[in-house]
Amino acid sequence: STQEAFRIEYDTFGELKVPSDKYYGAQTVRSTMNFKIGGVSERMPVQVIRAFGILKRAAAEVNQDYGLDPKIASAIVKAANEVAEGKLNDHFPLVVWQTGSGTQTNMNVNEVISNRAIEIMGGQLGSKKPVHPNDHVNKSQSSNDTFPTAMHIAAAQEVNEVLLPGLKKLQNALEAKSKEFSEIIKIGRTHTQDAVPLTLGQEFSGYVQQIKYGVARIESTMPRVYQLAAGGTAVGTGLNTRIGFAEKVAAKVAELTGLPFVTAPNKFEALAAHDALVELSGAMNTVACSLMKIANDIRFLGSGPRSGLGELILPENEPGSSIMPGKVNPTQCEAVTMVAAQVMGNHVAVTVGGSNGHFELNVFKPMMIKNVLNSARLLGDVCVSFTDNCVVGIQANTDRINKLMSESLMLVTALNPHIGYDKAAKIAKTAHKEGTTLKEAAIKLGILTSDQFDQWVKPKDMLGPQ
Amino acid sequence: STQEAFRIEYDTFGELKVPSDKYYGAQTVRSTMNFKIGGVSERMPVQVIRAFGILKRAAAEVNQDYGLDPKIASAIVKAANEVAEGKLNDHFPLVVWQTGSGTQTNMNVNEVISNRAIEIMGGQLGSKKPVHPNDHVNKSQSSNDTFPTAMHIAAAQEVNEVLLPGLKKLQNALEAKSKEFSEIIKIGRTHTQDAVPLTLGQEFSGYVQQIKYGVARIESTMPRVYQLAAGGTAVGTGLNTRIGFAEKVAAKVAELTGLPFVTAPNKFEALAAHDALVELSGAMNTVACSLMKIANDIRFLGSGPRSGLGELILPENEPGSSIMPGKVNPTQCEAVTMVAAQVMGNHVAVTVGGSNGHFELNVFKPMMIKNVLNSARLLGDVCVSFTDNCVVGIQANTDRINKLMSESLMLVTALNPHIGYDKAAKIAKTAHKEGTTLKEAAIKLGILTSDQFDQWVKPKDMLGPQ
Amino acid sequence: STQEAFRIEYDTFGELKVPSDKYYGAQTVRSTMNFKIGGVSERMPVQVIRAFGILKRAAAEVNQDYGLDPKIASAIVKAANEVAEGKLNDHFPLVVWQTGSGTQTNMNVNEVISNRAIEIMGGQLGSKKPVHPNDHVNKSQSSNDTFPTAMHIAAAQEVNEVLLPGLKKLQNALEAKSKEFSEIIKIGRTHTQDAVPLTLGQEFSGYVQQIKYGVARIESTMPRVYQLAAGGTAVGTGLNTRIGFAEKVAAKVAELTGLPFVTAPNKFEALAAHDALVELSGAMNTVACSLMKIANDIRFLGSGPRSGLGELILPENEPGSSIMPGKVNPTQCEAVTMVAAQVMGNHVAVTVGGSNGHFELNVFKPMMIKNVLNSARLLGDVCVSFTDNCVVGIQANTDRINKLMSESLMLVTALNPHIGYDKAAKIAKTAHKEGTTLKEAAIKLGILTSDQFDQWVKPKDMLGPQ
Amino acid sequence: STQEAFRIEYDTFGELKVPSDKYYGAQTVRSTMNFKIGGVSERMPVQVIRAFGILKRAAAEVNQDYGLDPKIASAIVKAANEVAEGKLNDHFPLVVWQTGSGTQTNMNVNEVISNRAIEIMGGQLGSKKPVHPNDHVNKSQSSNDTFPTAMHIAAAQEVNEVLLPGLKKLQNALEAKSKEFSEIIKIGRTHTQDAVPLTLGQEFSGYVQQIKYGVARIESTMPRVYQLAAGGTAVGTGLNTRIGFAEKVAAKVAELTGLPFVTAPNKFEALAAHDALVELSGAMNTVACSLMKIANDIRFLGSGPRSGLGELILPENEPGSSIMPGKVNPTQCEAVTMVAAQVMGNHVAVTVGGSNGHFELNVFKPMMIKNVLNSARLLGDVCVSFTDNCVVGIQANTDRINKLMSESLMLVTALNPHIGYDKAAKIAKTAHKEGTTLKEAAIKLGILTSDQFDQWVKPKDMLGPQ
Repeated sequence: STQEAFRIEYDTFGELKVPSDKYYGAQTVRSTMNFKIGGVSERMPVQVIRAFGILKRAAAEVNQDYGLDPKIASAIVKAANEVAEGKLNDHFPLVVWQTGSGTQTNMNVNEVISNRAIEIMGGQLGSKKPVHPNDHVNKSQSSNDTFPTAMHIAAAQEVNEVLLPGLKKLQNALEAKSKEFSEIIKIGRTHTQDAVPLTLGQEFSGYVQQIKYGVARIESTMPRVYQLAAGGTAVGTGLNTRIGFAEKVAAKVAELTGLPFVTAPNKFEALAAHDALVELSGAMNTVACSLMKIANDIRFLGSGPRSGLGELILPENEPGSSIMPGKVNPTQCEAVTMVAAQVMGNHVAVTVGGSNGHFELNVFKPMMIKNVLNSARLLGDVCVSFTDNCVVGIQANTDRINKLMSESLMLVTALNPHIGYDKAAKIAKTAHKEGTTLKEAAIKLGILTSDQFDQWVKPKDMLGPQ
Repeated sequence: STQEAFRIEYDTFGELKVPSDKYYGAQTVRSTMNFKIGGVSERMPVQVIRAFGILKRAAAEVNQDYGLDPKIASAIVKAANEVAEGKLNDHFPLVVWQTGSGTQTNMNVNEVISNRAIEIMGGQLGSKKPVHPNDHVNKSQSSNDTFPTAMHIAAAQEVNEVLLPGLKKLQNALEAKSKEFSEIIKIGRTHTQDAVPLTLGQEFSGYVQQIKYGVARIESTMPRVYQLAAGGTAVGTGLNTRIGFAEKVAAKVAELTGLPFVTAPNKFEALAAHDALVELSGAMNTVACSLMKIANDIRFLGSGPRSGLGELILPENEPGSSIMPGKVNPTQCEAVTMVAAQVMGNHVAVTVGGSNGHFELNVFKPMMIKNVLNSARLLGDVCVSFTDNCVVGIQANTDRINKLMSESLMLVTALNPHIGYDKAAKIAKTAHKEGTTLKEAAIKLGILTSDQFDQWVKPKDMLGPQ
Repeated sequence: STQEAFRIEYDTFGELKVPSDKYYGAQTVRSTMNFKIGGVSERMPVQVIRAFGILKRAAAEVNQDYGLDPKIASAIVKAANEVAEGKLNDHFPLVVWQTGSGTQTNMNVNEVISNRAIEIMGGQLGSKKPVHPNDHVNKSQSSNDTFPTAMHIAAAQEVNEVLLPGLKKLQNALEAKSKEFSEIIKIGRTHTQDAVPLTLGQEFSGYVQQIKYGVARIESTMPRVYQLAAGGTAVGTGLNTRIGFAEKVAAKVAELTGLPFVTAPNKFEALAAHDALVELSGAMNTVACSLMKIANDIRFLGSGPRSGLGELILPENEPGSSIMPGKVNPTQCEAVTMVAAQVMGNHVAVTVGGSNGHFELNVFKPMMIKNVLNSARLLGDVCVSFTDNCVVGIQANTDRINKLMSESLMLVTALNPHIGYDKAAKIAKTAHKEGTTLKEAAIKLGILTSDQFDQWVKPKDMLGPQ
Repeated sequence: STQEAFRIEYDTFGELKVPSDKYYGAQTVRSTMNFKIGGVSERMPVQVIRAFGILKRAAAEVNQDYGLDPKIASAIVKAANEVAEGKLNDHFPLVVWQTGSGTQTNMNVNEVISNRAIEIMGGQLGSKKPVHPNDHVNKSQSSNDTFPTAMHIAAAQEVNEVLLPGLKKLQNALEAKSKEFSEIIKIGRTHTQDAVPLTLGQEFSGYVQQIKYGVARIESTMPRVYQLAAGGTAVGTGLNTRIGFAEKVAAKVAELTGLPFVTAPNKFEALAAHDALVELSGAMNTVACSLMKIANDIRFLGSGPRSGLGELILPENEPGSSIMPGKVNPTQCEAVTMVAAQVMGNHVAVTVGGSNGHFELNVFKPMMIKNVLNSARLLGDVCVSFTDNCVVGIQANTDRINKLMSESLMLVTALNPHIGYDKAAKIAKTAHKEGTTLKEAAIKLGILTSDQFDQWVKPKDMLGPQ
């Protein structure tokens, strides 16, 4: 409003008006002026901001070990903690579509923490005294190593707090259903066509395996995500840091987060490439494929109520149509498949960004982490939603399942070892053509007796090797 | 808070508490309970909500022609207008990750408009009287035709209001630079290696052409985006609409938006597939490729200040580094290339969604429109940002350009017609090996006289056919 | 073998052994030594080679207008014609994974044509006399303009000879089916769930529209594909060409191919970017989405024979299983959907390549054209295969269709205008819960009389607006 | 030709003419008639055929343990061995674009092996006696488990024989260069702009790390690729196999290949999903990103010879231009980046295919394995080519490197700990503006003495933490 109060702050480019009620400074304001792209919904993810809070706290504590004034360090730690706890989220107005190094967000963090620390110490906002955003808050750091560090912290936390718990919850729910359905024999379908039988429990066990492997896939990429760039500073050499700083910061971050972070063995790679995030994104892409498959199956198996496959009864959660009264839809499956498509798209964005780094720095950082966090969050959330609102309530429509199974022509496969493929095919084709049962056809063709048929064609005996 | 006031609303599944200060009803609340996926930043784009406002207004006006009570129609029109103007954005809490038909958002719109219309008419919120969300606001409509209609309206508006103006602005700025630089002869580069000369204006003319064609590409896809599904209702047949409804609604939307909307000639296609959005996304993907190329060129040509190519001087907009004092970076180019990567990713998400429709309905609608709108907005915004904060301020570093050009070995190419490729190659290779000028090498090898060299090797004569 | 005969040829790097029975020369051999990547299946597509034949012939004829010795020109024309006709395909051993400008393939063409022309004129292979590969065959040309020209010629021909005919054939076949099925009323499906009815002809009309628009999409991109880079030479300036050369070559290529080629208005864009191919690939990507949707529908509608939806009877073309006798599968649909996936992948490869050009030259040319041609060919071929082996033979399973349609609960939608959404929902839910017909439920609930039900719920009246 | 000799073979659909000189039978011929898509270059990869040879041999040996006539088993083993050794490649004419289960290729294999075995045993081709393609060669198998088994065998072999050796070779070559260049101090570049120094060896160490992690990434996906579907038969239950068959076949395949194959713990997942290949493809996609980055760096660092960055001297392998004499280009880098783009595209194709399986079978199998094998081969081959023809020959242009490094303004960063960021920025900006050295500016501004500058600004001291 016209009434808004401002203070004057400066950076190396000059002075700028800053809203009085905000902790950020001139460089943040400058970024809002230079990057009017996408609006509020495109802001830097709060997970990145909070990860920066953790990092800045860790760095201040380690810097104190190396001689930073304990009073300054203490104020930085307190302010950084507030950032880490999400208390200062309103002070981070920058969008993802800024400099590709995330420098402006690093400076936003430095400015907010320095001003908040100044406030804590009784100084004047914007004075840079006694806490300077570059010389103190950013001490021994560069955007080039802090931003990737914050990326990895944020990604690792989202994976551990949202993605993996979501996947495991879904895995458990599917596993419970697999056991619940272990005695229900149903027709299998290959090429979407009738095939030989299996149990509904076996069918669900495939889904369980997919999700179980999904967890393993994500986890197998994490060792490289747990490596932090901090200590590499501007180009990876560690200029202006102290020997041991990198290792101590990583240890401190590990302590603060409870996650096994270590310092990256090669900082040049850690700044110039973000292969670790491409890799993680690739694992999430695989999980997306798994989920797409499972959700597709479940909605098709639950299709109907009268003109579909109708083998599953899905929970009815809401009115399905604004025009068709009484319609109920597999809406959770739809959310899952939409998320899957989004994750596949995010993965391509991450891939393109990851492949286009130059020399000592990849400058697609904000875009990459935005997509990685988005994928992790959406996958994790949708697994929970899908589990709670669909999977746990799935019921088997046993009447329907039995009816379809008993009519199947593909039970003929059990005859192969007895009469050979070609004769078995003749029976199946005859039954199909004449609309009869297999047994009728087999007898009519004179290939089998009724007793032989009953002895050899038993769905219960078709569920595993002999 | 515990103090929040509620009213009771119901849908066909039962009763639910609705916050008193919100116009939405039971189905909206139900969706917030069933789809806790991604949080606030994943809400349905406001452009879709506003497009729905336009559509619902148009439908009410046409419904009045077909007999809807004028008082009800008038209240719906007024409420819908408020939605269209963005005044009721707070009443649309649903996320993208809901049912894939967008039914819940259509019902959110129906509920908000009916309650607001009830309020206008002095009724009681939640009573569905005298304005029923389904029977009146949704009259002659289904989510299945309204959501795609809103998708097309929103996409067309974003293209016309953000994307195309942004592209044209950039095109104009590049064209001005191309003219400004028309006399500056510089070295060309192919394979990133020195090549024969061209003018800096010619180089920029290539960028102009790319953006110009980008505009043409977007525009060539719009005829199919201007086709509206409204009137198809549940499966495309138009059940429960009236003859002429579809055409009239499209005409009304065209009138309200000033865009050439028409009714889709085949409603089955319009509900079951969103090829038109895949196509538009494909055009934006091409524009992303153009922008990536241009921004890459400009940052490399402006690289330095002392150890890069250094042919362009880019505007200095902000401090470039938190650790390296005085550093200035091509940050606008970085925003452009990050956006380009995002658009490529969004395009894959749209493609996957677009390919996975089944039978009479594609159920990846919210995801698809989210990505299409995101691409349009980011591309349009970044073009403006890039133009204003970079392109218009680009200067040619003529000293550097002249120096590089005059030293180039590839000027030897002008000798081909006179002495043949093989002898010309010998001159170039000798000069390269011995670190001399071409002229020195040519004379030393006895292939040319000094006069011949001066006559045949003139950069000014190498800028076009003879 | 050890017995193979060689001749010695040279390039500016020195001498090399060339197989005596091949027309190519030293640069081709050198490329085979330097790029052992992928083997025979990764060779430059023959369409590119043949397009080069057309271009080289056109260039020779135009060069003759500008003074090239008619005897040399005539021999080049004859040799180039043989290349264009595919007679010399064995002389083009280079793989796609070579220099990104395609220079080595341009030189392969120059070498083959010069040697064949030398042979025609009675000279000695490898002597470069009287026809020099660079000075004569490549006269007024550079790889940098010839390769993109060949890319556009090849793409345009494949589109016109394979892709568009394939799409149109499929469109016609689907249209015939749409008419054939125009009286068959069936249940619609949205969200894979039962919905209101439509005719099978209406359902197929959506597919027709998708393919019809696919043709329009491809065609709308072609104006930019018909623009040729020839005349731009090394960096787009046209150095070492003559005024008018570009226009005459394009006219000649147009004459030879019967396609409306013109010279590109901006040669800088035509060398440095291949947006036109990204755009074409984007259109093919949209077509892939359409085909995926259609093929998925058809295989699900034809699923069974006893446990699927069973509304369509698909032609039985081959035994479907090595173990399940009598199994028949929708194999043509599977080929279609696999091709669709491939085209989507190819499109990303084209996009990545298209976005990564630098300065005056994009050096992803061979990769880009390989993928574009592959997409065009696969799409065109699979449309023909799908049409001939599946679509034309599709039969409606009318008994099944009628049965499903008559049982549907969603016919209740027709009651909305009479009794309102909420009462209609009650009827549908009751019938669903109790397993009765809608009519029974309506009467039991006392909402309708039997006569009213019969009067209002008529599938035939539900196929369009009233 | 009209002279070709045929024999008559039959399948369950009837009789067909088969070329006399081919071992395949009716089902193979039928597939060539039904799937005319893409031509010879689209044939099923020979790696899949050879993997089938291994599998069929293993199955025959295990079947003999379970009672298969030793004479028949022995003939099958011999014939399968010939397939495994690639001796019968001409007998496999089918294209990838067939049924999505690969059934026709499995039958092609069964037919070729049965006919060759019949021949070995002195029988008549096409008689199916004494070796029947289904009853004997395919015994205890289905296409649905054999094709995925062959996919995994082929992928694992290509990874171990081509991809990993290629990556390791490149890693070693880069590592040698990193050591060779360990003492060369050069300017760093971030945002493509001048930054603080590092050694050329450090720069290359980042590349080493990327490739080293690339190897780790590929290897971390292999445990799931080493799991074989064999024993699952038609839908995963193992119908018509014997207890122990699955484990024995996997052990036999492991023995024959020397790779640690095991039987898949869940056969339902192994048939219905190919997540393991999506995962492997994702790892290759990450490797593609790494290679794109490295190759881009090397070509830019080697750009010139006179107007580029010029820090590296790349091997000159061939003439670079058909028009510009003496031009040399970074062609190996171009092949690398083109391959990288292709692998990214292939990955999307694999992803789309992997996500679209239905029920008990994914039917995108041939397309998926084609792309996975293509990526593995191209990446492996291009690593070898890049290493041999580029990396090992890279030289540092030390004069150029020293010149650029000494002029850099970013050395000012070393002053931060002494004078603070803001004063250091003033020095750098002054030097930049006035075109002077940092030292001159520092003294002129009165911030430092000459001695202080010399003491604090030492590139050698800027290469690591203190």
